[in-house]
Amino acid sequence: MMPDLRFLVACALVFLTGSTLAAQAAQHPSMAEVLAASGPTDWRPLDPQNTLYVELPRGRVVIELNPRFAPLHVANIKKLIEARYFDGLSIIRVQDNYVVQWGDPDNRHPLPAGLGRVAPEFDSPLPSHMPFTRLPDGDVYAPEVGFSDGFPVARSHLLQRTWLAHCYGMVGVGRDVDVQSGSGAELYVVIGHAPRHLDRNVALVGRVVKGMELLSSLPRGSEEMGFYAKNEAPLPIKSIRLEAEVPPSERSSLEVIRTDSAAFAALIESRRNRPENFFVVPAGRIDLCNVPIAVRERR
Amino acid sequence: MMPDLRFLVACALVFLTGSTLAAQAAQHPSMAEVLAASGPTDWRPLDPQNTLYVELPRGRVVIELNPRFAPLHVANIKKLIEARYFDGLSIIRVQDNYVVQWGDPDNRHPLPAGLGRVAPEFDSPLPSHMPFTRLPDGDVYAPEVGFSDGFPVARSHLLQRTWLAHCYGMVGVGRDVDVQSGSGAELYVVIGHAPRHLDRNVALVGRVVKGMELLSSLPRGSEEMGFYAKNEAPLPIKSIRLEAEVPPSERSSLEVIRTDSAAFAALIESRRNRPENFFVVPAGRIDLCNVPIAVRERR
Repeated sequence: MMPDLRFLVACALVFLTGSTLAAQAAQHPSMAEVLAASGPTDWRPLDPQNTLYVELPRGRVVIELNPRFAPLHVANIKKLIEARYFDGLSIIRVQDNYVVQWGDPDNRHPLPAGLGRVAPEFDSPLPSHMPFTRLPDGDVYAPEVGFSDGFPVARSHLLQRTWLAHCYGMVGVGRDVDVQSGSGAELYVVIGHAPRHLDRNVALVGRVVKGMELLSSLPRGSEEMGFYAKNEAPLPIKSIRLEAEVPPSERSSLEVIRTDSAAFAALIESRRNRPENFFVVPAGRIDLCNVPIAVRERR
Repeated sequence: MMPDLRFLVACALVFLTGSTLAAQAAQHPSMAEVLAASGPTDWRPLDPQNTLYVELPRGRVVIELNPRFAPLHVANIKKLIEARYFDGLSIIRVQDNYVVQWGDPDNRHPLPAGLGRVAPEFDSPLPSHMPFTRLPDGDVYAPEVGFSDGFPVARSHLLQRTWLAHCYGMVGVGRDVDVQSGSGAELYVVIGHAPRHLDRNVALVGRVVKGMELLSSLPRGSEEMGFYAKNEAPLPIKSIRLEAEVPPSERSSLEVIRTDSAAFAALIESRRNRPENFFVVPAGRIDLCNVPIAVRERR
């Protein structure tokens, strides 16, 4: 797929002598240097109305919701939070190199009244204008990929559709075969190599911005698809709350790099051609799910 | 990078009516069906001379070595095993969405005599003949990718080079900035989204074929790059042995699908176009690190 000529040119560059490489390294700052040089306008705070706190016994997982791609599912999730539906449920599935999922396997918690069946929302019409920082190196699955409002996104002008991409840390709505069965009551988080075959088959609603390691390091379930067996005590979910309803003193104070900023463009370049001395053959390329969307404590 | 026209054709296919989709599904067996229908010649046993048992307190991790791409590093690793170098060392680093690494941070274990500094072996000359099951959907990082002798491989005819690819579960030789500093005494395993930027920058020597979950679910280290802090007790490595030196009654008896078999070709097709009812938009494509290289108990 990749034109071999472009690859050759890229490789010819990195086959040059060490002095040239050193000169290149001097020109390209590392990601740490890019972030250190960024200004306040390169960052945005999380929106308390679209930020979830998943409180686990070992700590807090912070999720940024993206209501633009799946507004009906996001609205359902907010209704579920308002009804305290998730509190006391469990993580029921941890499948290696795939997903962590939580829910209510025993139907102990009735769904709140008024929680409607919603349209699939697996992709969206391509708007005439959307913020889009396009990656230059292509993608195996989609004609175009990049970042929009801090999320990894794919799009097709021919199909006139756009969709969120299943990268590490993305949060989706579990469903059965029925495409309208995903109420939002079961959510999953990607903990392995990007399962991009799920793109356009499930509603993605957000991304973990802090606490991934609390999910990714959980014991894997021994039953099919990583579900926990009866003797594998599932981890309880203490609560899920909207940031807006948590007292300010108890909030995580995070900000995310703006994916339409100059700092993020520099970050992408730094990751396409790693300037660190360790690298003898910088890739000269990067795939969508290898670009870190930087998050830090708010300043 | 992907021709939009091909994408449109693929998408047009999946936009056809449900009856057509059902007919497609009937034509394409699922991966489970492919494996169930496979014959004995579609599988190969592991070679006891190139299979490692990493014995951890919670169980055994089985690694298949690939001596063709990094023969000097593999020879070093065998010397280290013979000297019982690894026994009693620890897992010293677990970086989320990246690698698990073991070694001897305190230099308690002297390296065995005769363990030479070896050439980088980060890629290899492209042989005139190599088994290669090429994937049809391209790759972001390399002109061609596929499978050779059960391993994910990239190659370039223009560069006349080939190399193993950093997919989930691949095992590499940790090194410092000095490209000859990777003796084999520190090994790492990929536990996250494929860090393909490491391709051609490190010597890959093998792949975990069983027990990944024992590594991927370890607590992440809190220090920089996921190294464990002093107060985070690192997991001990009881021993690393070659399968050939373990009594037959204590061996794991595994076989791996032959990546040049008809069954593996059918597996790839089944994963490119998931026939399971769950999928409403089969991807019609697959990336290198999403193809499962099936492993099972030997029959």
